[in-house]
Amino acid sequence: MTRAPAASTALLTDHYELTMLQAALAAGTAHRRSVFELFPRRLPEGRRYGVVAGVGRALDAIERFRFDDDVLAVLRDGEVVDQPTLDWLADYRFSGDVWGYPEGEVYFPYSPLVIVEASFAEAVVLETLLLSIYNHDSAIASAASRMTMAAHDRPCIEMGARRTHEEAAVASARAAYVAGFTATSNLAARQRYGVPTAGTSAHSFTLLHDSEEDAFRAQISSLGTGTTLLVDTYDVTEAVRLGVELAGPDLGAVRLDSGDLGDLAHQVRRQLDELGATKTRIVVTSDLDEFAIAALGAAPVDGYGVGTELVTGSGHPTCGFVYKLVAREDDDGSMVSVAKKSKDKISIGGRKYALRRLNHRGVAEAEVVGIGEPPVNDGNDRPLLVPLVRGGEVVGRESLEAARARHRSSREELPLTARMLSKGETVLETIHIGEPEHH
Amino acid sequence: MTRAPAASTALLTDHYELTMLQAALAAGTAHRRSVFELFPRRLPEGRRYGVVAGVGRALDAIERFRFDDDVLAVLRDGEVVDQPTLDWLADYRFSGDVWGYPEGEVYFPYSPLVIVEASFAEAVVLETLLLSIYNHDSAIASAASRMTMAAHDRPCIEMGARRTHEEAAVASARAAYVAGFTATSNLAARQRYGVPTAGTSAHSFTLLHDSEEDAFRAQISSLGTGTTLLVDTYDVTEAVRLGVELAGPDLGAVRLDSGDLGDLAHQVRRQLDELGATKTRIVVTSDLDEFAIAALGAAPVDGYGVGTELVTGSGHPTCGFVYKLVAREDDDGSMVSVAKKSKDKISIGGRKYALRRLNHRGVAEAEVVGIGEPPVNDGNDRPLLVPLVRGGEVVGRESLEAARARHRSSREELPLTARMLSKGETVLETIHIGEPEHH
Repeated sequence: MTRAPAASTALLTDHYELTMLQAALAAGTAHRRSVFELFPRRLPEGRRYGVVAGVGRALDAIERFRFDDDVLAVLRDGEVVDQPTLDWLADYRFSGDVWGYPEGEVYFPYSPLVIVEASFAEAVVLETLLLSIYNHDSAIASAASRMTMAAHDRPCIEMGARRTHEEAAVASARAAYVAGFTATSNLAARQRYGVPTAGTSAHSFTLLHDSEEDAFRAQISSLGTGTTLLVDTYDVTEAVRLGVELAGPDLGAVRLDSGDLGDLAHQVRRQLDELGATKTRIVVTSDLDEFAIAALGAAPVDGYGVGTELVTGSGHPTCGFVYKLVAREDDDGSMVSVAKKSKDKISIGGRKYALRRLNHRGVAEAEVVGIGEPPVNDGNDRPLLVPLVRGGEVVGRESLEAARARHRSSREELPLTARMLSKGETVLETIHIGEPEHH
Repeated sequence: MTRAPAASTALLTDHYELTMLQAALAAGTAHRRSVFELFPRRLPEGRRYGVVAGVGRALDAIERFRFDDDVLAVLRDGEVVDQPTLDWLADYRFSGDVWGYPEGEVYFPYSPLVIVEASFAEAVVLETLLLSIYNHDSAIASAASRMTMAAHDRPCIEMGARRTHEEAAVASARAAYVAGFTATSNLAARQRYGVPTAGTSAHSFTLLHDSEEDAFRAQISSLGTGTTLLVDTYDVTEAVRLGVELAGPDLGAVRLDSGDLGDLAHQVRRQLDELGATKTRIVVTSDLDEFAIAALGAAPVDGYGVGTELVTGSGHPTCGFVYKLVAREDDDGSMVSVAKKSKDKISIGGRKYALRRLNHRGVAEAEVVGIGEPPVNDGNDRPLLVPLVRGGEVVGRESLEAARARHRSSREELPLTARMLSKGETVLETIHIGEPEHH
């Protein structure tokens, strides 16, 4: 398995991060020790929980955040920043510490998803890139989790690449896998992350041939009887009959991509059974979302292919995470909490800890977010922050399978109301402990 | 200006494109001459027109669609396709023809945005990548166009990088520029596409310093009096007073990022004028969309910074374009039109032409989409398809400035109802001419 291209990530950054840096370098404040926090102020409207994804991608991106000659030339030629700033950037290498919620964990309003501690200069320039990755990947994983929950044990296959930016597609396939999807159509996700891929044929393949029979023969002959035949190009009943005639009762699956999928699935299941193809699976695709998946729960469907609604976050394509300075070094070397005073955009100053409070049956009861030292653990509080980067070295890398397993167990811990797809309140209340020292 | 990394784009592709290819190669049908069409079945609900973007990126991506050893190893090791298919892919180089709507052009339901003519094998494998690029970039440009229209002559600055996938962010900045935005915060968009960038400072910069005065002094000293001061960290009135005191009446701009932006803008304008800073501009940011921009039309605002709603397509993050086989070579070498029979997913067989019909005052009246030869031009029909690739060579590359100019003139041609932001019907009816020969 190869990695994503090792190009520099340094310019996937907002202009103002570097002009702030320039001004802070000149003022002598750039080296003040600082704590930044990445967090959500709320869940998307009506959602009951969110899912953290993108952690592994963010760690890769931090490692590749370097200002090489090509990058510096862009900044110099564009007069984006001055020479002392260029000199400082040329040596940039993140040397601080990062803690965060591990990948696949669920989150709630004000969960401190990432805490970056470094000099202001080193930490501020990571703002845009960290937000891009977390906001996108977590939006996809949060939607995907609702879909896999609605599908129960039936597999969900991610096939949305064509409906989103070609690189967002790869990250989407990865995030969906973390949240329980079993496979993707996206070959780059296989290449970069080892996500299993699947796929057989489209309507164009049938139309290329002189008849549906020619097309099915060609597909079965090349891909084997275990293949999935797309049966709605002309007439579904005739196509199912033909498919079983040509492939025999070992035909792997048929795919339905239009019409009333519930009714059709019942009809096709009866037909397949009558033809002796009792093990042939029925896969449905066509603008599915978590609600459509749930509605098909009683239909004889064996798998869901999900595209548009997955890669667009099922109505919520971004998470609204923000990255705020919450504490910084004072003149005397001590750390002080900071927060801006805005009524509509609240942030809470101070370096946070975070715990998931569980009851004696292991069911989650609250998200506890506090400032200072965490309370002595009474055995039912699960710490949520893990070290991701220590002294500039990535220490939090793990396999996608580990993230996938964490998501499953973390979701199972939630109260049953988390399973409700209807709009509602967050299933865990966030309890804030400790007062920030206002500056 | 450097180009995007020259990595292979071949695996930004759905698995099934390659299994279809394998089956068609084995059946001897892969080399049939084929015409694929990329088109929308409809506009997003309530939208009155759409904007084509991503053309230049698609041409770059086609050139980089090559199966090098690394790519082939992924397909071989994963047993995605068989050896004859791997051999064929190793030599892949698109050698066909592509026509399309040029970048920045507006579109309507069934506008044939891209027409690809090549062997089935060469054309089918481009499906996923072309759809990804066009669906994403056109969604962003379509939203951006409504925003720049609502802003009239006031500049719109794209600053949504943090709210979308880090690479989608670069493409979004590019698409927004095509649709009339004047600048972006995204430095990679400067690097790759020469889009102007802008930005000064965030709340974290103010909070880093011991006081707002220290922060403003640091910023003005380093970035000059023409800088934009962010004035809502603590108290807006005090910050505006301080900013003009420190920078003098030549202070470039102040930025408002919270609160009731309309009221605040009036209040700050009065204060600036009273302080003699009559040329200091007021820039507003904070969850703006086309409706908020329009609502601020009467407020003394000099520029809009737009983030989340731009990069998420203002409610419509994807366009729903599809890529369908519409004609192919028959056994006797003639081309036949093809289309699947599905009531809910209509496509129209046959190779298309497309014209914008204008009235004698130069106002667009209809989108004319036909099969076969276009009618003799009566002087008021503007042909919409231009050659993009000829015999595998890219011939349709142009500057972003050209696309930007085209968008402006193409939008100005539309009836006045195109300016309405409320939900409504497409402003041009699509007239279909000629009957497809059904196969």
